[in-house]
Amino acid sequence: MAKICIDMDGVMADTYQKFADAYLKEFGREPTRAELLGKKVYELDGAGHLRDLMYEPGFFRDVAVMPGAREVVAELYDGHDVYVVTSTMEFRNSFTDKWDWLGEHFPFIHHSKIVFCGKKDVVRGDFMIDDKEANLAGFNGTGLLFTALDNHYITGYHRVNDWTEVREYFRAEVAAEIAEIG
Amino acid sequence: MAKICIDMDGVMADTYQKFADAYLKEFGREPTRAELLGKKVYELDGAGHLRDLMYEPGFFRDVAVMPGAREVVAELYDGHDVYVVTSTMEFRNSFTDKWDWLGEHFPFIHHSKIVFCGKKDVVRGDFMIDDKEANLAGFNGTGLLFTALDNHYITGYHRVNDWTEVREYFRAEVAAEIAEIG
Repeated sequence: MAKICIDMDGVMADTYQKFADAYLKEFGREPTRAELLGKKVYELDGAGHLRDLMYEPGFFRDVAVMPGAREVVAELYDGHDVYVVTSTMEFRNSFTDKWDWLGEHFPFIHHSKIVFCGKKDVVRGDFMIDDKEANLAGFNGTGLLFTALDNHYITGYHRVNDWTEVREYFRAEVAAEIAEIG
Repeated sequence: MAKICIDMDGVMADTYQKFADAYLKEFGREPTRAELLGKKVYELDGAGHLRDLMYEPGFFRDVAVMPGAREVVAELYDGHDVYVVTSTMEFRNSFTDKWDWLGEHFPFIHHSKIVFCGKKDVVRGDFMIDDKEANLAGFNGTGLLFTALDNHYITGYHRVNDWTEVREYFRAEVAAEIAEIG
């Protein structure tokens, strides 16, 4: 059974939108797509302090679920060895928020399949779905780069642009496996 | 650089003593060594409810540091790729307690090298120091069984009885490596 490690922020959770909202509130407009190609919101001029939002209690609790994530993660969970693997360790106040968020939106994920970490090169699996190149670069299996504006210029990984593409990718994987066995 | 995954409870932290203290308080005596061979305190007759202490805020915050752990982990940290890998996910209130505990007693460990997880078979490394057989059984590298009363009857792993033995084990490892290179 293939072990699939799935990132939270930018993959299961639309954390980007939280920063865009904060930017809007402060600067009176949302950052444009053009500005954000290759950049995080908090890498824009004058917005560096927005990164500190991640230290605040509650920040990770009300993030929107990425479209399609719930349905496709549920499908993958049934038939694969799915782990949620999320970087949390810099942010002391993120732990319970993330745990509660997963319990609310992904109640079918058993707690034993959740990993809070820092550097992801301590994780092993067959597949990793992540929007951060550094996480995929140190991975022992196949990395799938989940598209985000800030990873626009990254090449060298199989890209999945949304959860529909993740579903298709693993359906094709399973079909190929069955064909091999057959 | 060898990647060493180190467990917290029963290895870095003397969590056993917390349960023994609770048992003493309730039953008027500490459990004996003979009673505990092959068992956790909360597996003793009538003491099953003591396991629930782990759900309480604060339980993991004031655990004593295992003798020698601080010094030897510091030595290992300097020269190896050390990760702290601890099962926390069942216990929502344990996250910040464990994070704070590590910050207090092991301030030299960078947050990126801490892993909170459930099942440890998602972790990879060269060595794992753990008191729980199930964690070592699913590990891809060399498992070192850190002696505890409850793992008394487990065989099939290299045993380290205390942190002095951990130090010796890795000094011998390094010496063997140098000899190989030389």
